[in-house]
Amino acid sequence: MQIVQDIATLRDIIGEVKKKGLSIGLVPTMGFLHEGHLSLMRAAKAENDFLVVSIFVNPLQFGQGEDYEEYPRDLARDQELAAAVGCDLIFAPPVKEMYPRGYATFVEVERLTTVLCGSSRPGHFRGVTTVVAKLFNLVSPTHAYFGQKDAQQAFVLQKMVEDLNMNLELVIRPTVREADGLAMSSRNKYLTSAQRKEATVLFKSLNKAAGEIEKGERDPEKLKEKIAQEISAARGARLEYIEIVDTSELRPVSTVAGSCLIAIAVKFDQTRLIDNIVVGV
Amino acid sequence: MQIVQDIATLRDIIGEVKKKGLSIGLVPTMGFLHEGHLSLMRAAKAENDFLVVSIFVNPLQFGQGEDYEEYPRDLARDQELAAAVGCDLIFAPPVKEMYPRGYATFVEVERLTTVLCGSSRPGHFRGVTTVVAKLFNLVSPTHAYFGQKDAQQAFVLQKMVEDLNMNLELVIRPTVREADGLAMSSRNKYLTSAQRKEATVLFKSLNKAAGEIEKGERDPEKLKEKIAQEISAARGARLEYIEIVDTSELRPVSTVAGSCLIAIAVKFDQTRLIDNIVVGV
Repeated sequence: MQIVQDIATLRDIIGEVKKKGLSIGLVPTMGFLHEGHLSLMRAAKAENDFLVVSIFVNPLQFGQGEDYEEYPRDLARDQELAAAVGCDLIFAPPVKEMYPRGYATFVEVERLTTVLCGSSRPGHFRGVTTVVAKLFNLVSPTHAYFGQKDAQQAFVLQKMVEDLNMNLELVIRPTVREADGLAMSSRNKYLTSAQRKEATVLFKSLNKAAGEIEKGERDPEKLKEKIAQEISAARGARLEYIEIVDTSELRPVSTVAGSCLIAIAVKFDQTRLIDNIVVGV
Repeated sequence: MQIVQDIATLRDIIGEVKKKGLSIGLVPTMGFLHEGHLSLMRAAKAENDFLVVSIFVNPLQFGQGEDYEEYPRDLARDQELAAAVGCDLIFAPPVKEMYPRGYATFVEVERLTTVLCGSSRPGHFRGVTTVVAKLFNLVSPTHAYFGQKDAQQAFVLQKMVEDLNMNLELVIRPTVREADGLAMSSRNKYLTSAQRKEATVLFKSLNKAAGEIEKGERDPEKLKEKIAQEISAARGARLEYIEIVDTSELRPVSTVAGSCLIAIAVKFDQTRLIDNIVVGV
């Protein structure tokens, strides 16, 4: 496995891989790898000849007062984990390699990015689409892998790929969960042990809502109220949003029908957790 | 020469060309081809195995009240001209192929796009960078060719390519001029014969300024005044802007030094003409 920090070397290696006609799988990450990332890598390795994992804590997608500085980093451990699943190349550039002095170009998806997480994190998705567009140009992957946990990110990136006619396929893989249902996230590390126990409320409340839908409930307001009640019963949990939206334009639905995304964001102190499920009626 | 109007067919052909390891030259145009375009095509043909010319009057780069509807179009004539210089493929998509319903993604270069033409045409360069990013993804050219006449466009696109790590080389070719010095432009067609005669004032005034610099003038204000006087002496000419800027960030200079761009925009009735020269001191 090669570890590359500069763009010139990356381009040389990718050029050679392409010349051989090999397919490339890309798993973009911010590092501090967990089982969710590893499951993406295993899929990417199985479906492509050459696996690239990028590790870059992207300052552009963090807002003022968010956790850019504190975001956990452990490149040595990440290298071991990536090597163990057959990663061929880690691209881990410093910030100045990605955003040199005078950097000025941004990729933005409109509408889809102003709802859900976008409304509490202005600029977040613009940072995501910009860095992912750069990574796609640098690695020219055949397939790129993202997790369903970041559902809105997956929708936004899919829209970017379609709209800008990017020549690759996005693969969105199911959320990987801890034994008790908590969605894997590098930010789970911030939780105290008491918060960690309460954090299962995200997935539990989503499942409750799915159960209500199964029983015939179609009113999004009633479902949201149910979820809110569950969340408020968990000690230290502050609900940031619950939304029930369609899965094409992420617009709030007036009745649950077709394919809907139920997405929530919950804060424990400064730690912000998200989770979601897709329900089909 | 193939004429392609849909993306699926284009992708198939480009995929085959790439598989053969051929280099691709792309000349993006809005059609109504003139000698300026043809000189780009000849260069592209000489430097690449496969020449793609796109012909697309891009609505996204026209502002409200601009000449999108009136912009001259003549695909039959364009085909003949392109074939004569050895074009291998014309890509001439309808608008809905490039911007289907629900289109939402935009590429934007900041700072460089708010000066010069950007200040009188808000959104123009965002339209240019977005459509060019799409064309680059669709055609994956080895080299893409643009004219120096649209100097700011060339700077902005070069910035986009660098910032987004696009894997291609931009080639900026000198402005092609009529015998009397008028820069070739599809919009010259709008000029009455009286205006056509007066329109030589753009290049003449730029040359006068270059002469003054040669003689030692370094004050941009004095040079701009000189140009403005020339322009105001031409019947029917209304000056939109004169700027003397550095060639890295397009910021107005306080003294002429190093490499400077002198750029002007002049209107004859509704017809907007631009021209520029680069001077080195």
